[in-house]
Amino acid sequence: MKQVRLGIIGLGAQGGTYAGFIATGKVKNMVLGAICDIDPAKKELCAQTYPDVPFYDNYIDMLESGNVDAVVTTVPHYLHPHMAIEAFKRDIHALVEKPAGVYTKQVKELNDFAATKPELTFAIFFNQRTNPLYQKLKEIIDDGEIGSIRRTNWMITTWWRPQAYYGQSAWRATWGGEGGGVLVNQAPHQIDLLQWICGMPKKVYANVKYGYQRDIAVEDEVTALLDYGNGATGVFITATHDVIGTDRFEILGDKGKIVVEDSKKLIIKRLNKSESEMNANMSWADAMKLFMGQMPEEIYSEEVLEFASVWGEQHIAVLENFAANIVDGTPLIAAGSDGIHGVALANAIHLSSWLEQEVELPIDEELYVAELNKKIAEEKALVAQ
Amino acid sequence: MKQVRLGIIGLGAQGGTYAGFIATGKVKNMVLGAICDIDPAKKELCAQTYPDVPFYDNYIDMLESGNVDAVVTTVPHYLHPHMAIEAFKRDIHALVEKPAGVYTKQVKELNDFAATKPELTFAIFFNQRTNPLYQKLKEIIDDGEIGSIRRTNWMITTWWRPQAYYGQSAWRATWGGEGGGVLVNQAPHQIDLLQWICGMPKKVYANVKYGYQRDIAVEDEVTALLDYGNGATGVFITATHDVIGTDRFEILGDKGKIVVEDSKKLIIKRLNKSESEMNANMSWADAMKLFMGQMPEEIYSEEVLEFASVWGEQHIAVLENFAANIVDGTPLIAAGSDGIHGVALANAIHLSSWLEQEVELPIDEELYVAELNKKIAEEKALVAQ
Repeated sequence: MKQVRLGIIGLGAQGGTYAGFIATGKVKNMVLGAICDIDPAKKELCAQTYPDVPFYDNYIDMLESGNVDAVVTTVPHYLHPHMAIEAFKRDIHALVEKPAGVYTKQVKELNDFAATKPELTFAIFFNQRTNPLYQKLKEIIDDGEIGSIRRTNWMITTWWRPQAYYGQSAWRATWGGEGGGVLVNQAPHQIDLLQWICGMPKKVYANVKYGYQRDIAVEDEVTALLDYGNGATGVFITATHDVIGTDRFEILGDKGKIVVEDSKKLIIKRLNKSESEMNANMSWADAMKLFMGQMPEEIYSEEVLEFASVWGEQHIAVLENFAANIVDGTPLIAAGSDGIHGVALANAIHLSSWLEQEVELPIDEELYVAELNKKIAEEKALVAQ
Repeated sequence: MKQVRLGIIGLGAQGGTYAGFIATGKVKNMVLGAICDIDPAKKELCAQTYPDVPFYDNYIDMLESGNVDAVVTTVPHYLHPHMAIEAFKRDIHALVEKPAGVYTKQVKELNDFAATKPELTFAIFFNQRTNPLYQKLKEIIDDGEIGSIRRTNWMITTWWRPQAYYGQSAWRATWGGEGGGVLVNQAPHQIDLLQWICGMPKKVYANVKYGYQRDIAVEDEVTALLDYGNGATGVFITATHDVIGTDRFEILGDKGKIVVEDSKKLIIKRLNKSESEMNANMSWADAMKLFMGQMPEEIYSEEVLEFASVWGEQHIAVLENFAANIVDGTPLIAAGSDGIHGVALANAIHLSSWLEQEVELPIDEELYVAELNKKIAEEKALVAQ
């Protein structure tokens, strides 16, 4: 197979953008195989924009048409696992949009089924993993350049959304439609990067604000306290009501510290001696000299790397990598099975706030689904009033 | 009274520094009245350095000598309330070192007693409140320039202390000697500033690490999640094991954001319209223009103020202000009764970590003392082994 014929399930904002990239030849080894949407208006749009591309109003028909080798699931989050499983059943490769699903139980079902079809490509749309800054950051951490991690701290409040955003459609920012707010819709990229680079925490305590500054049922602000189980701690903060958003990610290690500012600037401070060694050997008199700037040499060296980010390139890179994996086995940037970690962390944050206590990972999946269903039921009752 | 004769109780690092300031005429309206220390070596030192200043090995004797109008309590934290009360009983003014005490119950006793002697000056050594940066910051917040507070976030890990520091004396970093670690010894300044500028939280959840990177019984790292009870949240992080310390304080308000970097740089971002107004009126199309940098004008203006800090000046300012209040009623920078807030917050952080749950303020004071006494008993048992 030289050209992967991609079927797009859901021609919304993301699906439409990907279709455009592929139709204009921007994605190597990929062509538009078919498009599917349940909205009749999209059928007309496609007839005009992509007259040669078959259109379906039912994704199963598309999967069985013989027109697609692979699909991307640009549909509401709840649907990702089920649709990907249906694709795999028909030996169609699948690239799932983030998040992999709303709750880990459904994502586990997806992962388990995908594992029975190892010959198929299963990827997830974590385009931020293609960002050279985060790739470099992961490399530095993996290589142990700043030693073992003691503390992580990411404040990512650049996800500002006005009320008008939430008013775009009825399913937005509802428990039934999205299964959450900023944790499920906006922040999954950073939640994935955090666990990809620094690993998964063992315990989570969270203070989550539901409809705090927005007229929504779901969360618009999250403050989560992470415990990695080995002494290391972390804080993850995100919100949709900070119009002058902050994006600052700090990682403290035994051998240094890294600060990422605005996902553009990577500041790496490497200690000449590890903190443990300095701690064991430095006298208090020398420490005071250090505070007064009277030590003969610096205790660390600093490197600053600046990165430019071009919009769209990341998404094209994910599509291209997906095609390359299908065509020649090029390793995936983000294996589909990786999607469960971010969902697990987001679920733990929700559950901690619902139970008002620290929760251990993995969380009780059945309890999560039961609590989520309560929220959906309350929401329906509210709509019915 | 033109010259306040100060008695110094405890000629350690702080007491010795203050004595030096006063003896060299650096503190207006203040002279050295007497010095007290239980260590015979200090008596000899004083005889050489301050031959004209009376020395006492018992602070009660000093209080009753007629040589002092006021005292400063540069002694272990547990002793501050009791010694200040003894001074007030003898109509002697008192400046207590921070923290006001180890637990709120004892600080409340101090405040209650001080309230029966309104004619006496009761101050606390919060020298950081004299820092022009924090005075300016408080003014901006109090004037409502950035609106009502939604989030506070202070990471103050510049309190690096090597093991040698803790080894200086047996009482250091013990439950019996200090009643805590970084919360009680190093961070009280920032804990006070945080509550002075942003108010007291209503609930606290904390992850506290005891002897994490140091061979001590008490805490060397704190991550506290604050809830102000009105929707606003906060995070306070401090540690003594980060040799490349971070000092970053961010306050988000409805009308803007302030970031303080390294206690030196004050970055003030004032929104042209409040976030609530932008949220209510901005279309999603305009929001997207905003993200792409295509709006006709900036949504906020930025002001950056840089401050220089000269070591020692803050302490002299507190001593001078204390004297001025005694001499002519100049308002105090930090009234002694204010000391209880920082102790209450530190106690809440400890208690939350001991109970492994969120605690409400004011906390159960009796429970705190009981839990603290358990720690002291465990420590003694350990020493006895």
